[in-house]
Amino acid sequence: MEETRFGLRVRIPLGYDEAVERTTAALKQEGFGVLTAIDVKETLKQKLDAEFRKYIILGACNPGLAHRALQAETDIGLLLPCNVVVYEHGPGETVVAALAPLPAIGLAGENAALTAVAREADERLRRTLTSLEAAIPVRSGS
Amino acid sequence: MEETRFGLRVRIPLGYDEAVERTTAALKQEGFGVLTAIDVKETLKQKLDAEFRKYIILGACNPGLAHRALQAETDIGLLLPCNVVVYEHGPGETVVAALAPLPAIGLAGENAALTAVAREADERLRRTLTSLEAAIPVRSGS
Repeated sequence: MEETRFGLRVRIPLGYDEAVERTTAALKQEGFGVLTAIDVKETLKQKLDAEFRKYIILGACNPGLAHRALQAETDIGLLLPCNVVVYEHGPGETVVAALAPLPAIGLAGENAALTAVAREADERLRRTLTSLEAAIPVRSGS
Repeated sequence: MEETRFGLRVRIPLGYDEAVERTTAALKQEGFGVLTAIDVKETLKQKLDAEFRKYIILGACNPGLAHRALQAETDIGLLLPCNVVVYEHGPGETVVAALAPLPAIGLAGENAALTAVAREADERLRRTLTSLEAAIPVRSGS
């Protein structure tokens, strides 16, 4: 798993559709339901007639964590649900990335209750991505 | 309009349902379609049997800006669409808040193209919220 400034990311040797399905299932294992799904390729085609890679934005929500976050800071809905993106990276290779909860929640300033929620979300998302990597060993050289 | 660490916020003397309707219309005037809507109160009731105030998370997307952002940084879907929340604040008073694009996009690090997109989104969201305030003068004392 790779960490970017604002995300946690894995590349998996699966086609896009199967990656979306496995990601949804892996999130469920960690208590995240997918509340929203935006098909970016389809939306850009429809609104702008622009071509784009296969790309979906999943809005993942763990209801218990979301409830705790909202009780700690009413406006935190601005950062919910937690986005997980799945997109084509190359032939038979797909990227799955999750918004890193700690920097995102950090936008709201110092708040111990929020930080505790973000830490738990971070652990669950790392397990989600790790499980996706573990199920399908990455090919050598990738 | 009030600025928080991570949001732009107004309080308007309208009931929740009317505020949601006017917010959606005001976003449309600035080129933002509402791609997703999460009814937080309903979701928490259904998943946790928990009571919560009326609260909706709207996923607002300006397709042209989203396309530019995605071309500048593929992973920026982690921060799209731009969330706008509408929630009950008191009797006949509703809060409308938008995620402040500049700090949010700042999570991705320095990127001139992204910053330009965030600046334009910021201007459009400010006009959206200002138009909501202007249409209904806030009562004295609130």
